[in-house]
Amino acid sequence: MDDFAADPSHPRYDSLLKRHMLESAAQKGMLAGSALIAHGRGEAYDYLIGEQTIDTAMNATKQALYQLKTAKNPVISVNGNTTALAGEDLMRLASHLNCPIEVNIFYRTPKRMTVLLEHLQQINQKLELNVEILGALPDARIPGLEGPRAKCCHDGIFSSDVILVPLEDGDRCEALVAMGKTVIVVDLNPLSRSAKMGSITIVDEISRVAKNLISIIENEEEVSQLPFDNEKNLQLVLEHINQSLTELTKLTE
Amino acid sequence: MDDFAADPSHPRYDSLLKRHMLESAAQKGMLAGSALIAHGRGEAYDYLIGEQTIDTAMNATKQALYQLKTAKNPVISVNGNTTALAGEDLMRLASHLNCPIEVNIFYRTPKRMTVLLEHLQQINQKLELNVEILGALPDARIPGLEGPRAKCCHDGIFSSDVILVPLEDGDRCEALVAMGKTVIVVDLNPLSRSAKMGSITIVDEISRVAKNLISIIENEEEVSQLPFDNEKNLQLVLEHINQSLTELTKLTE
Repeated sequence: MDDFAADPSHPRYDSLLKRHMLESAAQKGMLAGSALIAHGRGEAYDYLIGEQTIDTAMNATKQALYQLKTAKNPVISVNGNTTALAGEDLMRLASHLNCPIEVNIFYRTPKRMTVLLEHLQQINQKLELNVEILGALPDARIPGLEGPRAKCCHDGIFSSDVILVPLEDGDRCEALVAMGKTVIVVDLNPLSRSAKMGSITIVDEISRVAKNLISIIENEEEVSQLPFDNEKNLQLVLEHINQSLTELTKLTE
Repeated sequence: MDDFAADPSHPRYDSLLKRHMLESAAQKGMLAGSALIAHGRGEAYDYLIGEQTIDTAMNATKQALYQLKTAKNPVISVNGNTTALAGEDLMRLASHLNCPIEVNIFYRTPKRMTVLLEHLQQINQKLELNVEILGALPDARIPGLEGPRAKCCHDGIFSSDVILVPLEDGDRCEALVAMGKTVIVVDLNPLSRSAKMGSITIVDEISRVAKNLISIIENEEEVSQLPFDNEKNLQLVLEHINQSLTELTKLTE
């Protein structure tokens, strides 16, 4: 971040900082070709929800944390964008939950895997954590998927009962659900296939979600299981966006 | 495009093809670091307008064409994304209008300028056109802008009375309007500063807009001046998005 010179008082500072983080990650070889385009789509949806954690997202976040804390074998799955935007906080979360992090990328190349695994190991050292980082030696397959994107680790994703998979592809999300797992999706687009497939979908920006999870844990805030309906959750998000747009439409009158 | 293997019957074919075009352009050095993120934002808004030319966009397109056809010194300003997505059709349009195309990029580097200028010259040869391509030797400045982004050509942007500037930065758009020009903006985000600043804003995807303009010209469809209110135009777009979302919200009920 040394070369990021924007003024923190700039109204678009957070957004510019995230862009910069992703451009740096792209230069390091952490991202697939489509990663920046995906981030841009996220930016547009984030703008429509007001670049904030809305109530229904916070509710989903708390239910997600309850599931992760009470899981037998929780796991956090990260790809390039997730690592670039929220690597440190998700490593802290894994440490709190005492669970592994697994690098699990859609366009798997040895180079990208190495860069991402090294990046997470450096976070372990920097933050003095001891999180188990999986993904280097996949020894299992997600049933129903073809090719390298099916690869996973037996002691991580394969055996997990609850999985946090931010920014995940729709097909993979569906395959994980079909394995009987509780799948926690983080996606800014409430209409995406992943959002619709997830057991719990947090429609929020991944770095805010990670910070919220850490903050709830570190403040020792109690989370308890409440009835959760993911379709209703997504509908509340759509209604929020709709209302924002109605207000924006009025503003231009 | 030789290495693009998606099936044209794929429901997301157009979107995948555009992504591929931009990724190729990025590899050739045509794009700034933020270009793919900007494209992703566009994708999200395009999804919300239904990936189609809506009526108010077609109306704006026709009014834009009327202005370009009756201008004394029309010019088409292109950046990296515009060139990648609609270079050929905008060169055809310039040929029909007998006006220059000026390469005009926000993050101006000699390398990017050279790659873009060469790409357009190759289109001239491939399509047997004789369009004047400006931008290599800027000899004027847009008042009110600082640094390299103020640079332009006297015989192109500087002296134009009507300018088509797809995917333009808000500040530059504002500076062009302040010069007294009729500024035709193409932007998928109806809430962007450029969209709000433009004289005529076409809220549509640039390759569709270019195809529509060529089609109107080649079918010798008459375009006549009608009263045009850009605020009203943008409001109709927001209402369209709002209505789409309302329908999508209902679908999930």
